[in-house]
Parts: sequence; C-alpha cells; structure tokens
Amino acid sequence: MITQPTLLLDEVKCKANIARMQQKAQEHNLFLRPHFKTHQSLEIGRWFKEVGVSKITVSSLAMAEYFADEWTNITVAFPVNVLEIDTIKRLSKRIQLNLLIESTETTSILLEKLEDPVNFYIKINIGNNRTGINPEDIASIDSIIKTVKKSKQLRFIGFLGHAGQTYKCRSKTEVLEVHQEAKQKLVNLKDRYRNKYPDIIASYGDTPSCSVADDFTGLDEIRPGNFVFYDLMQQQIGVCDYKDIAVAMACPIVSIHKDRCEIVVYGGGIHFSKDRMETKDHGTIYGQVVAVKKHGWNGITKDMVVRGLSQEHGVIKVPENEIDKYVIGDLLYVFPVHSCMTVDLMKVYKTLSNNYISMLNS
Amino acid sequence: MITQPTLLLDEVKCKANIARMQQKAQEHNLFLRPHFKTHQSLEIGRWFKEVGVSKITVSSLAMAEYFADEWTNITVAFPVNVLEIDTIKRLSKRIQLNLLIESTETTSILLEKLEDPVNFYIKINIGNNRTGINPEDIASIDSIIKTVKKSKQLRFIGFLGHAGQTYKCRSKTEVLEVHQEAKQKLVNLKDRYRNKYPDIIASYGDTPSCSVADDFTGLDEIRPGNFVFYDLMQQQIGVCDYKDIAVAMACPIVSIHKDRCEIVVYGGGIHFSKDRMETKDHGTIYGQVVAVKKHGWNGITKDMVVRGLSQEHGVIKVPENEIDKYVIGDLLYVFPVHSCMTVDLMKVYKTLSNNYISMLNS
Repeated sequence: MITQPTLLLDEVKCKANIARMQQKAQEHNLFLRPHFKTHQSLEIGRWFKEVGVSKITVSSLAMAEYFADEWTNITVAFPVNVLEIDTIKRLSKRIQLNLLIESTETTSILLEKLEDPVNFYIKINIGNNRTGINPEDIASIDSIIKTVKKSKQLRFIGFLGHAGQTYKCRSKTEVLEVHQEAKQKLVNLKDRYRNKYPDIIASYGDTPSCSVADDFTGLDEIRPGNFVFYDLMQQQIGVCDYKDIAVAMACPIVSIHKDRCEIVVYGGGIHFSKDRMETKDHGTIYGQVVAVKKHGWNGITKDMVVRGLSQEHGVIKVPENEIDKYVIGDLLYVFPVHSCMTVDLMKVYKTLSNNYISMLNS
Repeated sequence: MITQPTLLLDEVKCKANIARMQQKAQEHNLFLRPHFKTHQSLEIGRWFKEVGVSKITVSSLAMAEYFADEWTNITVAFPVNVLEIDTIKRLSKRIQLNLLIESTETTSILLEKLEDPVNFYIKINIGNNRTGINPEDIASIDSIIKTVKKSKQLRFIGFLGHAGQTYKCRSKTEVLEVHQEAKQKLVNLKDRYRNKYPDIIASYGDTPSCSVADDFTGLDEIRPGNFVFYDLMQQQIGVCDYKDIAVAMACPIVSIHKDRCEIVVYGGGIHFSKDRMETKDHGTIYGQVVAVKKHGWNGITKDMVVRGLSQEHGVIKVPENEIDKYVIGDLLYVFPVHSCMTVDLMKVYKTLSNNYISMLNS
C-alpha cells in the first residue's frame, strides 16, 4: 500500500520507448549508446540489453562504477574531473572506458597518470554553450590531438556533442532546425579529420533531436537518455505524447481547500525536484495530475497542475467543479516536469505490477 | 581530500546562528521550537540542546521517527497524512507528538484510529496560502474543536501559522510589514479562544520574520529552521549577511572556457537542487562563488555566479580579468540559493575541521 510519495514506473510504456529508439537507431545505421543518467538502474539497463544495446553513456564516474558490474563499454559524458584520477584508473582496468576531453591541461594530467588504455572523444560545443571546444577552434583541437600523439594510454576516437539547446524549443520544427545546425558542426569536424583518423566517429546526444529527427547523415552514434521515461518538458517541446510518459509520482492528498480550489499533497521539492516550466494556461508549473486508469495512467487531467512546491508540500490547482471528487487520503498521480531529476531524488521505482526496482544509491 | 561535490559546514558560524536565535527567543519570552527540516541531523540537533532547546519541529513523520531517538517532544509541521496512521501510532507511544490539523475529515480519522494521546494545533493560513484554515473561517475551527471535545486521544493545544510569504520580500521593512499582519492573525485567534481554552498557544514560523522582527507580542513559540545555515535567498531577502551563511558546496573545476568567460564545475542540480533566484546584476542565478580564506570562507567573490545547472554540471560566470586565476582541478566554494534543499540532496556534511556529520538517510 502506498502511504508516502512514490515513484511509479509503467514498464510497458518504458520498454516501448526503449524499443522505439533502438529501432530508429538501427534504421538510420546509428549506434544507440543510451544515456543511463536518467534511470540509473542496473535492472532497467537490462531492458536495453534485451533489444541489443551493448554500450552506454553515464554522467559521472560513480555511475560508471555502478554500471561496470554489467556493462563493458561506458562513456562518461562529462568533462574529466582530474581529482577523481584514482576512480578513472580503477575503471580503466575493468572496462573499456571512454572519456571526454576539452583541454590540453586535462590531457596532460591523464597522460601522466593513466596506466591502462582509455578512449577519448573531444567534446565540441555544438551550440549549447555549456561545455566543449567551439567547432571553429581548430587550434585547440589540434593541440589536444598532438599532445596524445605517441600515447598508448589515450586513444582519440572522435567528436562528441550535445545539442542541449533543443530544450528551449517549443515545436518539432524548431527542434529540427536546431538539430540540423548542431549535427552539421559535428559532422564537419569528423570530415575534416577523417583522412588522418579514418576510425573516428561523431557522437551526438539529446532526447529531443533523437526523438523527432530523421536526418542523421554523417553521425555514427546517438546518446539520448530522457526518452526512456520522457516527461512534461519533453511533451511541451513537442517530442513525445502524454501517453509515452512512463513515470508518475503517487502523492497522498493531505488537505483540500475548496475556497481556494486547491489540494495539498505530500510530495514536494525533495521528491519532484524544483524543476519547473512555463505554460500558457497556468504560468509556472511543477507537475501535472494524470488521469488514473485501472492499471496506471492515461494522459492528463485537464487544468490540474502543481502550482507550487515546498520541501514536502505540493499545491495543486483544481477546477471548481471537480474539487468535490477528491477526499483526504486519496492518491493523486502526477507527471514530473523533469523525470531525470525526480528519479534521482526518489531512488526507487515501484512498477505497476508492484515490483520495486533499485538504482544507484538506492 | 575533496574529489567530488562536497557540502562544507562551518561549525562556528552555525553555532553562532543557533545561539543568536535562542538568545532572541529568550529575550522575547518565546519558546524556540526550531524546525529541523533544514539540517536533518541528530548531531547538529545536539548543538541546539547545548543552548537549552528541548522541543523541536520537523516536516515529516520519517523525520520525527529519526529524531525521536533523542527528542521527546516533536511537532510535525505538515498536515496529517492519514495514510501514515501506523507511523503516527508508533510515534505517539514513544514521544509527545504534536500534529497539525486543518479539517474535520482528518480529525475524525485520527479519533477513530489513535490509541495514545496526541496534541494538535489547528493550522491557520496566515497569508502564505499554502495550507491552513483561513483565520476568518471560525465555523471550520469550531467544528474541529467540537469534533475532539470528549476525546482523550486528541488534545487541542493552539494555533499554528507559517508566514512563508516573507520569502517574497526583498527588504527588512517588507518582512516586518508581512510579519505584523501575519502574526496578528494568529494572536487574534488565540485571544478569541483563550477564555475557553486558557492553555492554548500561538506558534509562529519562518526564518525571515524570526530573524528580523522585534515585536512578538502575543506569540508563545517560534519555529524558524533555515537560520541554522542561512543561504543566498535569505541574504537577498535582507535577513542575514553573507558572513552568517554556514554551508557552502566545494566543487571541482572540470573545464575553463576563457572565450566565454565561464568555468564548468562538477556540481549540478542533483547536488545544489534547482532552486534559483532572480538578481538585478546577473539575472537568474543558482549559486554564488564565495571568497575562500585559510579556514573556510568570508563573503562572496563578486560577479562569480552560477548561471546554470544541469544534472551534474554547474556553469559559472567569471569576470574577464579574473579567469586566468583558476586552473582545472581547483575547488570552488559556492553558496547555495536554498540551503534546505542542498542539504537534503547532499546527505552528509564535512566540517571545516574535517569531520563528517551524518543526517537522515545518510
């Protein structure tokens, strides 16, 4: 019985999301190297193995160590943290470890310290302006390649970019425009260096692009992560339907304020995270109540949005003519704005068939 | 050695914040019942005992169970979640448990299920519009009191309110105005019911009011929580100085982008939380780099703000003439926007004297 905020997982929707992305990758001759930072779970990882996925992406060395129990080829899609060199050395003995480099400083430290071979991508800023070398900065790229030239520890395997700017898009058309431009930056670099390094690849990320694009010409590998569950943000961007969202939070109703047309649930910022989104109809929201069906959920309950989150409280707007339907002690199911953050906070999944699935730090 | 995002705690600043609030409470003849949702730690709780605190507030039953090992009088400042009745029953056997009630529905369920005596406050909405009965809704208040009239399990001990709307203030003057109005709502209710219930109290919360106000006439108990550490939000509201902020995140520099005048640190939304604030000079920020001194920190480093957070990345703006000072592998210390949320994510403190302090769910 659910008595506290609980992260529910619809396995059927989740496995369908996985299968769809793997099929798409295969149709476009791409290697799907899914980003596991979203689910962070060995058990859910096995669902990817079932459809033939063999290489993965993670966002921290701690996550790489966790997944190294079952995966032999892992990319850490985060700039190398040189302070964790001991973890890098440990991992490079166990698995094929692939790192992201974007400076000669980091390259030199790795060269000095590494004992076992490690692959690396050069991280390129393809428009997100978070990390990466700007694609026109050939001098910096050449300088990294030159630094590792005679190294047996560090092997240059290609260019990697993340078109995170798609998260600012609000339609498929916008996503596709961003995608074309971002992708081309990576492909141009690969083309420039391919003569000298014929085996290098172009590795490209982000769920919005990978979900809606159909032109991946020149790319070799995609690394979407969020698609495994999707969420309200992805629906708002236009890359999934409500019916694809595979996680929802079950939250007990603790208070009903008919005068304010609001329900307070047990479920706050420490459960959902404070990620939020702007909507036309309801301003800033932190979640959206879903329509419960016998087994799970089916779309949303119109106009029932989480308008605010404190540490433990969620405050939900309810249409005036609907509020009498609810009683204290009921559970509301709520879609999170950003599933990656909610999952990271909740640490455990409860499936619709009442199994518990653990994850990193469960 | 710090190699990953680490929550640092300055014990001296923290103990000074505790002592200052306890002294203020005593000067105003108030009972300090501090809210422990901010630090969530038995060990830090003991620092409150040292200055004479004997009763506490928490925000969940799980937190109450954790603190029940060392505290005998605990208020759960969250509307009763009737689904957790078993935990309530367990706790009411161990300690003096004080609950918040705001409906006859919840009252009736408790009356039916409780075995041991429990105190309750009636939760009043004193302007925050999150939970609570509106103060003018005497009918609802009377109806709860009537429901418990002959009960031996449920004892009415007073009115409780939280002036959370002070978090929208941007000066001491604004906080004081909100405080006067909010406080008066609670005091008026107590006065109205005091003839019939001479022992009832008025319990009032929120760090901004309790930090800056000097008029607590009519109140009996205060429940601030965040003051134990403070944070950037409190500084922006005008209720603490930078020098009072007792926690900072240590984050490794993983990337330096001189062209964009930005540094990327290991330290993202899963470490800081996505809480943010609007600033005049830098727009939306998620943290502020502090000035490191030999032992801890001292104020901020001007114009070095966290402009964005992803799951693991923090992106920090750096003035052009300062960026050459930093190298990959350095640690930056960063004040969180909202310390309650950061602490909840980090789960462990490292003090400046290199001790580790655990907390709930460490």
